[in-house]
Amino acid sequence: MSFFDSRWVGAPGHVRELAADAGLPGGFRAAGVACGIKPSGRPDLGLLVCDAERPSSAVRLTTSLAPAAPVQIVRERCAVDALRGVLANSGCANAATGERGLEDAAQTQQAAATALGVQSEQVALASTGGISHHLPVERVLVGLAEASARLSAAGDLDFQRAIETTDSLEKRANLEVELAAGTVRLAAQCKGAGMISPRFATMLCFLETDAALSPGVADALLGPAVASSFDRISVDGQLSTNDTVVLLASGEAGVTVGPDGEDARLLGEALEALLRGLAVKIVADGEGARRIARVRVNGGVGDEAERAARAVANSPLVKAALNGGDPNWGRILQAVGGELAGATSVGGAQLGADRLAPVGIAIEGIEVCAGGAALEVDEGALAAAVAGKEVEYEISLPGNGASAEVFFSDLSHDYVTLNAEYTT
Amino acid sequence: MSFFDSRWVGAPGHVRELAADAGLPGGFRAAGVACGIKPSGRPDLGLLVCDAERPSSAVRLTTSLAPAAPVQIVRERCAVDALRGVLANSGCANAATGERGLEDAAQTQQAAATALGVQSEQVALASTGGISHHLPVERVLVGLAEASARLSAAGDLDFQRAIETTDSLEKRANLEVELAAGTVRLAAQCKGAGMISPRFATMLCFLETDAALSPGVADALLGPAVASSFDRISVDGQLSTNDTVVLLASGEAGVTVGPDGEDARLLGEALEALLRGLAVKIVADGEGARRIARVRVNGGVGDEAERAARAVANSPLVKAALNGGDPNWGRILQAVGGELAGATSVGGAQLGADRLAPVGIAIEGIEVCAGGAALEVDEGALAAAVAGKEVEYEISLPGNGASAEVFFSDLSHDYVTLNAEYTT
Repeated sequence: MSFFDSRWVGAPGHVRELAADAGLPGGFRAAGVACGIKPSGRPDLGLLVCDAERPSSAVRLTTSLAPAAPVQIVRERCAVDALRGVLANSGCANAATGERGLEDAAQTQQAAATALGVQSEQVALASTGGISHHLPVERVLVGLAEASARLSAAGDLDFQRAIETTDSLEKRANLEVELAAGTVRLAAQCKGAGMISPRFATMLCFLETDAALSPGVADALLGPAVASSFDRISVDGQLSTNDTVVLLASGEAGVTVGPDGEDARLLGEALEALLRGLAVKIVADGEGARRIARVRVNGGVGDEAERAARAVANSPLVKAALNGGDPNWGRILQAVGGELAGATSVGGAQLGADRLAPVGIAIEGIEVCAGGAALEVDEGALAAAVAGKEVEYEISLPGNGASAEVFFSDLSHDYVTLNAEYTT
Repeated sequence: MSFFDSRWVGAPGHVRELAADAGLPGGFRAAGVACGIKPSGRPDLGLLVCDAERPSSAVRLTTSLAPAAPVQIVRERCAVDALRGVLANSGCANAATGERGLEDAAQTQQAAATALGVQSEQVALASTGGISHHLPVERVLVGLAEASARLSAAGDLDFQRAIETTDSLEKRANLEVELAAGTVRLAAQCKGAGMISPRFATMLCFLETDAALSPGVADALLGPAVASSFDRISVDGQLSTNDTVVLLASGEAGVTVGPDGEDARLLGEALEALLRGLAVKIVADGEGARRIARVRVNGGVGDEAERAARAVANSPLVKAALNGGDPNWGRILQAVGGELAGATSVGGAQLGADRLAPVGIAIEGIEVCAGGAALEVDEGALAAAVAGKEVEYEISLPGNGASAEVFFSDLSHDYVTLNAEYTT
């Protein structure tokens, strides 16, 4: 099956998918081991290193005001533009662990730096798993020794396994990108079943390229690609304490991509396609997900399109209808109207209270609402349109605001089962 | 069973609960009939009238920017401080019905005014039920004739039945309130299983008193009572297109309550207790609800306590944990941290990113998190504490902001079943 298997993510013409066992781009080695953080004995510790002398890097971290210890370490104690390695674990988020959590994380960072022969500030940390538990540092140190002995260019699959928690779809890709200056590689290992796991899952994504990028170019490429991918998805609207994206560039391909020009555009396009593909897979892997959807909102005033799109994507009523294959667009209108009310209070007279009257809604291209009122539709065709694996909603608001899209999963019995019935 | 059966709603000493069949306060008559709006043939049209010459009234309406036609009619074409009657229906929300919806609503308003012998601007409308369907005006007119013939002081129960949709708990009360100037009556008929119905339920509440209130006093009493009751609940965070609260005062008791002084305070206290009781019943009747909770947030800066309380109440992870009797407070920390991040983007360095480190969390009085870190707790006691019907979470944030509370229901399999599996 192709990595680019969603209609919402096309592979650009200059991007070629490599075999699953193609290995990491030049200049990278990785490993993954089981060190006993997970009671199940499954892989839970991943190590990634860039062997290039002067690699560049860029990072994006959760904006949660309750960040986990590894996020705080990366933010405060890492040279985020010159990283050489990553130590990542699953099975423990090291969040809500206070000062001791920070000390534990710093100790593992120092140990990883020693094992890799680099400075501690060059090692990023990432954790995912249960919150409020302390990291079993001794086990991590034993696992680190094993992982550093196993580092190899073909270690990306083991690394991938070590960062997964409740994932059921693999979120990994090895791509080749044709640039004017030559061919470069782009690889990704990613995890996340949304922020919806009973064990409090997180999205982590590690990206490697053998292109030569300055730190500024790496950052300039990563920012927009994250903004149009991981920032555009919602399983349950819950921002994690641990989200982390790291891009490392080794330069081993001998192809330099400068800040402007065609190659920056081409590599950016490839990176965006890759990240959108991973993002849609995270939504499709949302716990219990049966169907996924894209909502696209056009028009509005100011940030209304953005707010409306997120309100629809996070509405439990819309998500339950998606699950049931129910073309219940009244819930879409309600979610938009409720969000743009801007106030949660039940107030009296309100200026422009029917300003949304001209709203229009289409489902899979079938117009169901225009000028704020229901249209006559072929109910059979509409029901068939929402029965597939992917459903598309399009909303037009009065006004000339920018358009916004959000990808989201449905609300299912399995979601409730996973999050209610298993105590973490 | 007492109306005041939640530990969160106490009956003030000067308030006495009357028998369920005590009837409406002096000056009021009501009726409820089945006119065929609901295919089930259950009651669906309610009529309420105040026979006093110069009654006063006050109204609160949904702030949704996609308000239903009856809401627009009340807002734009009613004398909301001098209402004489209410025509309410279930089975059809008359929302997303465009110009025709407004014309339909206006026609029924005029007919009700004629039947009651008042001006059309003195009749409020309220609808609840499926969205995007047109009101069957002919049936409403036939039902109106029947209802106006059946108006009686004991008609409150029939009226109540006619406004219910998916409600399973009755939300009705008849109270007697001791004021310094004399005894007055206070009655309520209310519906709502949250904004969570598969048929798009709404909260409607009609309040009658035989106290003599100026329109200004009626409004001044209603506002704060709504703000501390219906504004403080969430089943699924979804604002309805149709929410409506109407207070009517007949003055028949001959007891005048002025704008200031002890009696205004006492009546306000009674009204607030009544509305909080109804509000908690709406949450407890949230579709599929097994448990309900109160989250109280103290501290923070600006409106952080308010935002944090709503974020916790609307988090599907917290709600699923509540359903499962799982004291998973990591999800509470995550919801607060995610909401107060204030941005949905995954950004880089951020000022004050660990500002929430001093957060504290208690569940049923058991401190589980202090200074942002997990505390040692008696797991058995904690599990027992969240096994009851009502669970209380208390969160302290750094800062001196005001405290905020929200009542909410859990996320259950029945919620998904009702909202996914039945096509509306």
